[in-house]
Amino acid sequence: MTRWIAADWGTTALRITLMEGDRPLDTRASGDGMNSLTRDMFEASFLSLAGDWIDDKSHGPTQVFACGMVGARQGWAEAAYRTTPCTPLDGGLTRVVTADPRLDVRIVPGVRQLTPHPDVMRGEETQIAGILRALPDFDGVACLPGTHTKWVHLSAGEIVSFRTAMTGELFATICSQTVLRHSLVGDAWQEETFLAAVSDALSRPEVLTARMFELRAADLLHGQEAAVARSTLSGLLIGAELAATKPWWLGRDVVITGSPKTTRAYDVALKSQGLAPRILPADAMTQAGLIAAKDAA
Amino acid sequence: MTRWIAADWGTTALRITLMEGDRPLDTRASGDGMNSLTRDMFEASFLSLAGDWIDDKSHGPTQVFACGMVGARQGWAEAAYRTTPCTPLDGGLTRVVTADPRLDVRIVPGVRQLTPHPDVMRGEETQIAGILRALPDFDGVACLPGTHTKWVHLSAGEIVSFRTAMTGELFATICSQTVLRHSLVGDAWQEETFLAAVSDALSRPEVLTARMFELRAADLLHGQEAAVARSTLSGLLIGAELAATKPWWLGRDVVITGSPKTTRAYDVALKSQGLAPRILPADAMTQAGLIAAKDAA
Repeated sequence: MTRWIAADWGTTALRITLMEGDRPLDTRASGDGMNSLTRDMFEASFLSLAGDWIDDKSHGPTQVFACGMVGARQGWAEAAYRTTPCTPLDGGLTRVVTADPRLDVRIVPGVRQLTPHPDVMRGEETQIAGILRALPDFDGVACLPGTHTKWVHLSAGEIVSFRTAMTGELFATICSQTVLRHSLVGDAWQEETFLAAVSDALSRPEVLTARMFELRAADLLHGQEAAVARSTLSGLLIGAELAATKPWWLGRDVVITGSPKTTRAYDVALKSQGLAPRILPADAMTQAGLIAAKDAA
Repeated sequence: MTRWIAADWGTTALRITLMEGDRPLDTRASGDGMNSLTRDMFEASFLSLAGDWIDDKSHGPTQVFACGMVGARQGWAEAAYRTTPCTPLDGGLTRVVTADPRLDVRIVPGVRQLTPHPDVMRGEETQIAGILRALPDFDGVACLPGTHTKWVHLSAGEIVSFRTAMTGELFATICSQTVLRHSLVGDAWQEETFLAAVSDALSRPEVLTARMFELRAADLLHGQEAAVARSTLSGLLIGAELAATKPWWLGRDVVITGSPKTTRAYDVALKSQGLAPRILPADAMTQAGLIAAKDAA
């Protein structure tokens, strides 16, 4: 069976998987994200990571299916957005012109929404294709937490609409760039504190920016533990996001697809609101989505 | 009449004013904020800016009255917090031990709040002393917008309680450190857009983190102007702050004391809610407060 490469190429990292049919054989990663590359650097970056995975015998070029910011305007080749409502994938992938004839690279297009508000995704559409491969009849909401968390309404195999919250990026930026950084060191975690803050922000979402400074003051005045401050900040931000996206998840079937740590936070937060989310890991869904893209090509 | 020096020494800047009694004679500033100095650097930094203002004749040492982060634990000398409810100043200033015998430096203590929530200020107590010098019978709320905006309930000459919102720091950090930075360049401003976002966030404060990413998507999809994005982000953040602080300003007499640009934003936002704030400029209030500190010493 022919080998091919699945590539998850985002803003800050490249992860590739050597595949044989639907079966993963090996995985490699590098920090060569879209942000650190100019267009003419993508091919060399890919070749240096894939190395001996590239077939140089007589079998013809190695197929590569890629998703993520690699298809942005500043990426390897721009893969124009498809527009909601739409299936997460169709057969139309963007071919990349490569200097090396051993490569046959195709990029999955992102998805855009024009109404009711402008929104965009790149990479998440592939995870959604993976979710629908795992749960073909799913009718509900996919929550894809990360730097930019997506809430995606899925029905009849289509992305009906979606909403992005900048929660992950705000948390990281506040932890590293504001005065709170002095009071948020480390990565210890207290789930009870987190859930109390989720509940607080859900019932009074307006308190966010005022409650934040309390974390600094409590450190200065009482030496409050960093774990309390981090868990509270995370809970306030995720609680505010849940307040904003309530129409998306309330009374709906919800699937969470993210990294283990972030998934856990959204899972317990949604459970505290009486939901019973299903969990499908992000890496596996990306891989399943790239298999779907290859099958559809 | 004896000359003295009023020093407003914050996190990122030092501003000094040569005074003769209550009359300012000259002003100088440097970027030597508390953040860029270790304790043993303050004296040299001060001397290099004040230079020929320091009296080296036979009149005795030059008096310096200072407020702000210069009194923090990492400052020139720690000036312990006073606790609310309290007057903004009393006679108790912290003396700095200097190597140069020509200096007699005193620092105004900050103010802390233990209940109903922990909070701290350093520098704003001096501006409040200035406000009370200008409006001795003021009973209402002082809004001091800035990196960390303070809402301060004043009554019978005392700070009753206060609340800090991180609005200014969040705006600056989001503009410079997140993916939105690409869509927020420049500093053009649209007041109507700003007020629409204030109103939106006041009525639905939970939309903050979701509406933020819309600014990026609207740029990618429609090339939305940076001025629209900046004004919207500022309006969303200030609107959310006004939602959080509604119990502070609703039906109250409000004074705004900040820099001209920030004051203007809070002024039009509060006017849109039916208030008629008075405006007293920050620099003048700091100076008046340092005169009050000298008089009380």
